[in-house]
Amino acid sequence: MENTVGFIGVGAMGEPMAASLLRAGFALTVCAHRNREPVERLVALGARDGTDPAGVARASACVITCVPDAPQVDEALFGEHGATHGAAPGTLFIDMSTISPVATREFDRRLRAAGFRFVDAPVSGGTARAKTGKLTIIVGASDEDVRDAEPVLRAMGTPNHVGGVGMGEVVKLVNQIIISNTMIANIEALTFAAKAGADIDATLAVIGTATGSNYLLQNWLPQSWLAGSHAPGFMLDLLRKDLAAALDSARAIGVPMPASSLAYQLYTASSGEGHGRDDYTSVAQFYERAAGVKVRKKA
Amino acid sequence: MENTVGFIGVGAMGEPMAASLLRAGFALTVCAHRNREPVERLVALGARDGTDPAGVARASACVITCVPDAPQVDEALFGEHGATHGAAPGTLFIDMSTISPVATREFDRRLRAAGFRFVDAPVSGGTARAKTGKLTIIVGASDEDVRDAEPVLRAMGTPNHVGGVGMGEVVKLVNQIIISNTMIANIEALTFAAKAGADIDATLAVIGTATGSNYLLQNWLPQSWLAGSHAPGFMLDLLRKDLAAALDSARAIGVPMPASSLAYQLYTASSGEGHGRDDYTSVAQFYERAAGVKVRKKA
Repeated sequence: MENTVGFIGVGAMGEPMAASLLRAGFALTVCAHRNREPVERLVALGARDGTDPAGVARASACVITCVPDAPQVDEALFGEHGATHGAAPGTLFIDMSTISPVATREFDRRLRAAGFRFVDAPVSGGTARAKTGKLTIIVGASDEDVRDAEPVLRAMGTPNHVGGVGMGEVVKLVNQIIISNTMIANIEALTFAAKAGADIDATLAVIGTATGSNYLLQNWLPQSWLAGSHAPGFMLDLLRKDLAAALDSARAIGVPMPASSLAYQLYTASSGEGHGRDDYTSVAQFYERAAGVKVRKKA
Repeated sequence: MENTVGFIGVGAMGEPMAASLLRAGFALTVCAHRNREPVERLVALGARDGTDPAGVARASACVITCVPDAPQVDEALFGEHGATHGAAPGTLFIDMSTISPVATREFDRRLRAAGFRFVDAPVSGGTARAKTGKLTIIVGASDEDVRDAEPVLRAMGTPNHVGGVGMGEVVKLVNQIIISNTMIANIEALTFAAKAGADIDATLAVIGTATGSNYLLQNWLPQSWLAGSHAPGFMLDLLRKDLAAALDSARAIGVPMPASSLAYQLYTASSGEGHGRDDYTSVAQFYERAAGVKVRKKA
């Protein structure tokens, strides 16, 4: 059982993360939810099909969940065919979804009461870095549980232990607050640049050396919006879900969020226009239409 | 005359930039405006005191202006004792102030009509990089004028030629749009982190490897807000002036700026509370008071 890992939620992020575990030599069991295709692709790479979360857990010493939000984690763990129904005592559950830290702590309480262990380990980097196994993984758990989770996590990226259970989610939301605002900052700035006649390639190059330098500007936008594509990447409605979790948490603990609230409204407008399943750079289309300009790199 | 440079505006940025020119071996002439102290410090390093802008220009083949805004550039160039009254035909004027590109193009028109040459070359990097001569310099001008300005600019940092006259200012405003929003994104995110009990050092380390990574978070905040200091750095009222220029320009060319407009209002509130001459990270004090938390690095 030592090397056995289960993976529940083989979507846009989960599928390449599961493939990284196979490449690292783990005995992997997966299961399908709505869509069988990713399971078939993973089986072709050497994974077993566990049929449902309980079946996945029966075959695995460590069970990973990577699903859109807390209700899906709940279903995967505690639903009719949930993983807890198949798991041996002491099973290590790792939730790599991005959800509210409040929900995370509640899952931890219920799993521990049932004799299991729990680690929250949300990720950052998008599908590109999921494929190369170079995700940033933000881990909340006890030292002992982190030690046991570490070989599994290391197959998918670099684990960073930031505190106790729930703290991985807190710091992940910190990242999401920053990217949601920084993306809009970049879009307002580059739409202004293009409309004012600036060369976008030259602008990117110089901002990359200036105080405005940021990861999204240098690494995300050139592959997406500025190349004329809004293929995810990172789905706009998932960012909205993360931002909603951040705004809810901030309200609960009394932190004002004027800029992040505006960002949420802008992404919500873009989702309402039909871009919810596109990359979150789609919010740029509102700016391009309003300004009457297309913002593109040359090559 | 080859190696003679005049510098008008030896303030928080101008003084260390002028000192870089002296270190590089230029024969430098400066003059005082309100405050004589920086002139006396530069004279002690080998500069000449030209008394007023006209006197500075009489001694210089190249005249740099580095002042807060367009009215001060106008006064330095065309005022009663303005540099144009002392400058020889063909003098190369370099404006390193951050001002509206519209004003820049008007200065270019007037200088050219009077037989002079003009380059706009605003900078990014703050006082820290002004002192080390490692500024990002964003240059708008003809190829010929850039070639002549380059040895002078290279003494203060790295010149980046982004287009014709005015385009240096456009791209500088692009940077200011990004930093004004990204700073607030970082502040909302880190205030949330601190109030939720996260370790700020661990949070900085992990975000530095995640999609939220940005220059201000890694390089500016640890020296200022997160160390408990709001000494400039970059004065909040100067950022407000830059943002106002960006918002005015955006309105003139029809680009929507919802996030940057909100940022302007937040900085304006902080200025109204008495922080206009402090570092622009002072806007964090509003968040800290509202959330009832101090956000600090450990060491």
